[in-house]
This record gives sequence, C-alpha cells and structure tokens, in this order.
Amino acid sequence: MGGDFAPDEIVLGAVEARRTSGAAPVLVGDREAIDAVLRRADDNVNDWRIEHAPDVVAMGEHAVTAVRTKPDSSIRRCADLLKAGEVDAFLSMGHTGAAMAAAVLVVGRAAGVERPGLAALLPSSGSPTLAIDVGANAESRPRHLLEFALMGQVYQQRVLGRDAPTVGVLSIGEEDAKGNSLVLETSKLLAASNLAFAGHIEPRGIFAGEADVVVCDGFAGNILIKAMESTAEYAFGELRAQVKARRLSQLGALLMRSSFRELRRRTDYAQWGGVPLLGVNGVVILGHGRSHARAVVSGLQVAEQAVRAALVPTIADGLSGLTASA
Amino acid sequence: MGGDFAPDEIVLGAVEARRTSGAAPVLVGDREAIDAVLRRADDNVNDWRIEHAPDVVAMGEHAVTAVRTKPDSSIRRCADLLKAGEVDAFLSMGHTGAAMAAAVLVVGRAAGVERPGLAALLPSSGSPTLAIDVGANAESRPRHLLEFALMGQVYQQRVLGRDAPTVGVLSIGEEDAKGNSLVLETSKLLAASNLAFAGHIEPRGIFAGEADVVVCDGFAGNILIKAMESTAEYAFGELRAQVKARRLSQLGALLMRSSFRELRRRTDYAQWGGVPLLGVNGVVILGHGRSHARAVVSGLQVAEQAVRAALVPTIADGLSGLTASA
Repeated sequence: MGGDFAPDEIVLGAVEARRTSGAAPVLVGDREAIDAVLRRADDNVNDWRIEHAPDVVAMGEHAVTAVRTKPDSSIRRCADLLKAGEVDAFLSMGHTGAAMAAAVLVVGRAAGVERPGLAALLPSSGSPTLAIDVGANAESRPRHLLEFALMGQVYQQRVLGRDAPTVGVLSIGEEDAKGNSLVLETSKLLAASNLAFAGHIEPRGIFAGEADVVVCDGFAGNILIKAMESTAEYAFGELRAQVKARRLSQLGALLMRSSFRELRRRTDYAQWGGVPLLGVNGVVILGHGRSHARAVVSGLQVAEQAVRAALVPTIADGLSGLTASA
Repeated sequence: MGGDFAPDEIVLGAVEARRTSGAAPVLVGDREAIDAVLRRADDNVNDWRIEHAPDVVAMGEHAVTAVRTKPDSSIRRCADLLKAGEVDAFLSMGHTGAAMAAAVLVVGRAAGVERPGLAALLPSSGSPTLAIDVGANAESRPRHLLEFALMGQVYQQRVLGRDAPTVGVLSIGEEDAKGNSLVLETSKLLAASNLAFAGHIEPRGIFAGEADVVVCDGFAGNILIKAMESTAEYAFGELRAQVKARRLSQLGALLMRSSFRELRRRTDYAQWGGVPLLGVNGVVILGHGRSHARAVVSGLQVAEQAVRAALVPTIADGLSGLTASA
C-alpha cells in the first residue's frame, strides 16, 4: 500500500514478476483494493495469496510510533510474515523510515550485527557503486562502518555478481590524513581487516568507480545521495526552463531526445528496483516512492536473488570471520 | 602563483580589476614571472606593487607543514601582508588548505570566533544560498555552527546585499526530530538566538532557496558541495558521450547551444569569483583552481565589497551580541 502509485502499480508489477520469474509474490494490503487491480490484470485471482492489512502508514507519520501502534498496517504485516518465515523477503515502495523500523523492530538484526545499514546503488563509469549507510542511522561508530563494509561486499559479490569487490570509505580528500575521526578510525579497521580496502573515496571517486562499496555514516550518506538526486533534478529542470524560452532549443531538444532518454535509462533507479536494508535477519528491499510496475518487477527480482544467494547467512558468516580478524 | 592558470590569468585579472574598479591589487609571487605577464598586459608596469615570493605551495603538499616551512611561498607572504595591515584582503586561487592554514595561523581568528568556517555559494531558484562550513574543519560542535550561522548571515547581508537573511541547518529530513546530535543541538541554539531560523534544510531545499544561509559541519558540507559538483560533471559528461554517438543529437546539441550556455552561466563559479573564509581576522577570499581572469576580477570585487562593508568588525560585533543571547 506504500508509494505514490499504490496499490495499482505495485500489484501490476507483482503480476508481471509472477509471469516472468519463479517468484510467488504475496500481496499485503487492503484486500478489496488489491482484488480490484488483480481482477483487471490477471485471470487467476484465486491463485494469489492476499494478506489483508487494512491500515496504512502515511508519509508524514513518525516511523517507530506508527510501526508500534499500527499492527494492521501493510508494512507491519510484511515484517510479521517475514519474521514468521511465511515469506522469504519483503519489498516496500512506501515510507522508508517505517519499513526500516518494522524490519529492525519485528524481524530483528542478523547474528553479529550491531547496526543495520541502508544501501544505495549509485551510477559510476563502470558497474554501480554500493554506498552504505545512506540513512538508517543518524550516528555511527567505526565498528558499524566496518560491518557496513562487510555487508556491502557480500551484497556486491553474492547478489550483484561482482568479483572481488573493493571497499572504500567516503571522505573529503584522498589523502590518508584527511577526514573526521570516524573516517580515520574506520580506515584503520578496514586496513587491518580481510576486506579489499580501496582507501578514501570522494564523491567524484564514486562516479569514477574507484571502489565497489563505499561506507559512510548515515548522515553523510543521506546528504550524499540527496545532493546527487537534487543536483540532477535542478540541472535538468533549469535546462528545461531555458529550452522552453527558445524555439531553436526546442527543436534541438527534440533531436537530442534519444540521448536524453539513454542518459535517463542509465541513471534510472527503476533498473535496480530497490536497495537492501542490510544487517536485518531477513531480506528487506526498499524501493523508491515513485516506483511504477517495472521497478516493482526489478525489486522482486533483487529480493529473489538475495534469497537464493543466502544473503543473510553469508553476512552472518562473514561477520564472525571479520570479528576474529579486526 | 596558485591555481591552474597562474600566474598569467591571475595577473590579467588583476590588471582588469585595476582598470575597472577602485582596487589597487598587490601582486604576490615570483617577480620575474609576474613582470613578464604585466609587461604584455599593462603599459605602466612601474605603477604596480609586486611582492617577490619565490616559493610555491604545490597541490599535493600538506597544508600546515607547507605554510610553516615555506615563509617565502606566495600564500604565506599574502597572509603576512594582511597581518601587517599592508593589504586589506587577500585572494588566492591556489591550494585551498594552504590558504586556510596561512589565514588561521598567520592572520589569526577574529574576536569571539572559536572556529573559522569556509563558505560556498550554491545555486538556488532565487538568490544564491551560502553554505558554511564546507571544509575548514573536519569536526564541529554546536557552538561552531552557531558562529557559522552568524557569520553567514552577516556576509549575506553586508556583502551580498540580502535583506533579513534566514538561516537553516543542513539535515536529512525537514522534521525537527531528524538529524544527528550535532544538528539537533544546533537547532536548539539557533531557535534560541536572535537569528532568523528557517529550520532543517535538505539538499533539495538549498536549490529551492529555503534559507539564505545553511550551516553544517565541514565534513558534511564538503561532501555536499563535492557531490553537487561531481554529479553535474558526471551527468553532462555522460550526456556528451551519448550525443557524440548520434548524428541527430549532435545537431540537436548545436541548436540547444544557447540554452546550455545560459545554464552554465547561471551555475558558473566564476560569477562569484571566490568564497570567503569567515571568522579570520581579515578578509580572505578563496577562488577555484580553474579560475580564469574573469573569476579573478570577480574575486577582487568580492574582497573589496567585504572590506568596504567592514565584514570583520561586523562579525565580531554580531558574535558578542550572539554570545549574550545564546
């Protein structure tokens, strides 16, 4: 029930995923609303499992309070199903804070994890860079960033199929001595660990693909991804305004259409469908509020891959090895 | 002698500024190199004061060490001149860290200032937003952010001519409860101060012009501006690559040229020439390493305005009033 185009686009995405993959999605939300969309999209309404959850966490609500006081909300019910082992993963396009709170409070942390971290996939000249944490925690300690590094490395390797992923730490200069105390302490831990440490990475280094995983505290990481998103929006919004005021530019923009489209395709969040909340005791994928059916299909694929790759046990294994060496 | 196009573009900018404004620039650097450029650009070489400084701080050098061990470097000599009252301000397009170190170590802090902060002007839908600190300090306390707020407000008002500037704090959500402890503590101080507090500002809010001044710790601020800069570079770099591969797009880009040019003009750092290091006991303006003569002209104008506006005493006055009320 979460996201700007729920339940229609969510249900349509699930229908498509069921047709084209081995996944058997369970739909969680208002039964009547879901039924109505299913009826239009799929002949076999009776084949679907629908978990009725009449309540919704609205965008303005306080995440933890909402999860605690709304046991019948769709997001809380998703977490309950995952905790009970009735589903292998859950995907949400709604209130990110509420989804994280439900995952942490209900599903709980994976073995050995102190702090779960929210990951994001960022465009780079090569394969996408995974940044973690981009907002699950407002405050972090070096040990948490070391955990993020291990979890990000496992995700890149097992779910995204990246060979021997490297790990860097987000900083304000590539020199070893630059950065705040969190960065400097984390660097020491990473250099002493069994992970492939790529050093300090600046925002430009993310785009240049200098590391497969970049760790940071959730405040800096959230500023990072929001600065990237809003800069792109601002730049192309301003360009659009300039074009609107000029006849020749309008024609030019028309001729450039395929280039703009390709740029958008390459930087479109929908291709990844969603990003994982790593470190909880189950597979939790969070999508963008503006997700259409295509992003839902991708999100369900990501969830399926993470389950098949045994993401959670692999993280727990890796963390126990990491604790020994760090 | 600092910056990618020194000394040529620096000297040419100074010549232009001297012709068009009331400023009397003093040129600090290698006398022979400066002389050679001056001779080509100005008939009255003898009218200029040149301070011979044979040494240079290179980009890779450690800032504090370089300033301490190179008394004959151009940047150190600039700071000496300002400290001695022989100039009213200095402008540097070189090693930002070295310029900040020279200013803090030689010129010292203004009365009442615990930590100087580096400002940046960011594009917004209205007049530019001043972000501070964007990298002078890797670590900050709430009191420092309060100082940044006052100094940014004074700069917006006295130097940029903004009426009744508002001040926000950079955060990861507009809600009062969101953010790390530094943000939450700073919010309390700002709300209790005599400044016009605009609340929490996300990166998107900067572009939307939600506050005239946005304060942050130097780590987050540096990530913010570098993420903005590198996102714009990446997006337009990728677009250029797409256009190169397509004939029609090439024609389209040609027709859109004036729109692209206008966008670049509106987001060009050169229009501001440089940004102030606020809180030192003198006017210090730092420009972009890629500055051409036009940016140098703007930088000198900014410095002149800051001097005429009595920036430093106004900050000291403001801080003593702020200490009383906060």
